[in-house]
Amino acid sequence: MNRDFLSIVGELNLAKRVLVVGHIMPDGDDISSVLSATIGLQKLGKEAIAGIDWKIPWYFYEFEETSLIKRYEEVKESGFSPDFVLILDASSPDRIGKFQEFLGNVPSAVIDHHGTNTFFGTFNWVDTKFGSTAQMVLRLNGELGVQYDERLATINLMGIATDTGFFRYTNADEIVFSDATKLVSMGGKPYLISRLFENKRIEQFKLLSTMIEHLRTENDGKIVYSYLSKNDYEKNNCTEDDSGGFVGELRSIQGIELAIFFSEYERGEIHVSFRSRDWFDCSKLAVLLGGGGHPRAAGCTLRGELSVIIEEVIREAKIMYSSQYSSVKS
Amino acid sequence: MNRDFLSIVGELNLAKRVLVVGHIMPDGDDISSVLSATIGLQKLGKEAIAGIDWKIPWYFYEFEETSLIKRYEEVKESGFSPDFVLILDASSPDRIGKFQEFLGNVPSAVIDHHGTNTFFGTFNWVDTKFGSTAQMVLRLNGELGVQYDERLATINLMGIATDTGFFRYTNADEIVFSDATKLVSMGGKPYLISRLFENKRIEQFKLLSTMIEHLRTENDGKIVYSYLSKNDYEKNNCTEDDSGGFVGELRSIQGIELAIFFSEYERGEIHVSFRSRDWFDCSKLAVLLGGGGHPRAAGCTLRGELSVIIEEVIREAKIMYSSQYSSVKS
Repeated sequence: MNRDFLSIVGELNLAKRVLVVGHIMPDGDDISSVLSATIGLQKLGKEAIAGIDWKIPWYFYEFEETSLIKRYEEVKESGFSPDFVLILDASSPDRIGKFQEFLGNVPSAVIDHHGTNTFFGTFNWVDTKFGSTAQMVLRLNGELGVQYDERLATINLMGIATDTGFFRYTNADEIVFSDATKLVSMGGKPYLISRLFENKRIEQFKLLSTMIEHLRTENDGKIVYSYLSKNDYEKNNCTEDDSGGFVGELRSIQGIELAIFFSEYERGEIHVSFRSRDWFDCSKLAVLLGGGGHPRAAGCTLRGELSVIIEEVIREAKIMYSSQYSSVKS
Repeated sequence: MNRDFLSIVGELNLAKRVLVVGHIMPDGDDISSVLSATIGLQKLGKEAIAGIDWKIPWYFYEFEETSLIKRYEEVKESGFSPDFVLILDASSPDRIGKFQEFLGNVPSAVIDHHGTNTFFGTFNWVDTKFGSTAQMVLRLNGELGVQYDERLATINLMGIATDTGFFRYTNADEIVFSDATKLVSMGGKPYLISRLFENKRIEQFKLLSTMIEHLRTENDGKIVYSYLSKNDYEKNNCTEDDSGGFVGELRSIQGIELAIFFSEYERGEIHVSFRSRDWFDCSKLAVLLGGGGHPRAAGCTLRGELSVIIEEVIREAKIMYSSQYSSVKS
């Protein structure tokens, strides 16, 4: 067993007031991990507060427990003084936003499955063999002796399901299925998780049509990209939450290797998502552009004029596509 | 262990030439079950031929083994004379099309998980506790001593994945996850299965936009329905295969209970698909209209003018919705 894992278990056994922190622009794995650890610690009788310095996408409120997650300002105003900070699914300090302020004063632990992790905690359990951080929280809760009920099992399973594209990506391996089996046997309900993605508004379908109209390809159809501008969101009465799965739609187009989606929700602030199918390492492209992620799914945020940013990112993507192609095929 | 299951194992142990038959309008579970049983029997040194009296949707050819499946005419012309007929995932004789001709001459077995099964084989192993017939074939192959390799494990897993909406429906229970874990541990690759749904043509997105334009609701948004006419398919350069997942898109709309999709691929021949979320029993509506299926997913085929059929089916759906609602809520 990993030494940092055992240290983290030891620290949490002693801790009384734990701040459980996720990352900015939180995804399903992050929200699941933060909630599962927080609820687990509360079940052990500890004071635990969940904090994410970002607005939680509306569809996660399908799980009422999501309301446990506090913004930085709320935690600050409450006067909560943690004796331990547990950071989940965040690869570097900037990813936890203003919650960085809590680091340094008390011991902290980072639990993460990203290869790009910078080991910024007092203790760091980082293991890329896991398809999701939620699986690591399952092990943490198990070692701490947390009793699972149907709700906790479902919330914990949500992170595994979302980070593996509902068991469809290459990271959906035997450990993923075996952990999912365990959580389902403890009462986890996959169909409750699938509702996160089954609450589409008709406007979302119209937004999708707009994105399809903007679609372009490069490198003989191997690179496909599209965008939604601030105007597109407004015109369709949508927010950026509504385009959460769109890069996956681009990735599902026949014959492509790399899909890129540009989303300008705040004017001049572009969220860029990268997804690949077989061999392109998206995390290298994302890191080059100041972001991070996994080989098959990564992202970054850039500021500037949408059309200029699209042009620049596509230029870099084409260069990196060619160089990665050469080394993969040789 | 079920007595018919053991009888079927005994018969197959003795059989030399087995015809493995699936149903008309085959879905992923049927194709997976037919291929897994056929390949399993071939691995045991038996002559086994797979037969389905219907065109296989193009995207299943992502698995090259799909070419093992013969049409009725091909089996007939080959002069193949089976000493046993194994029927998979078909609830009644009409569902196997012209292959009915082989019944009666030699002993047959029906393996199926549909509650609407009519027990039309010499032996009938029917068990609705399974989310997919593919899981029953996994047990059959196990009892017969079939050695799994990566290909067979992936093909067998495909049926479990497709019939549970890739582990998202209410039938994705502990047995489903535990069987999936077993198949993944034997080399099954979920990401190869997900490619069935990740080969979308841009035309398919345009067809989806057309369906969204046709969308209507009834009963305060609880019933949602839409259609694609022969003209819509032609205009978008698409075939009915391209709209395979569209009823699932309708089912994903916020707040609905029952989704209905009408597809007129051949002029005057309408395929109607029903999907529900929480309580509406689609199979009752489908059986009333001459079709069949499961509580949450069912279908039927009707002949006539598209607009007339839509009107009639929606009328029946609304009546049944009200009566089922009364009994569910009381």
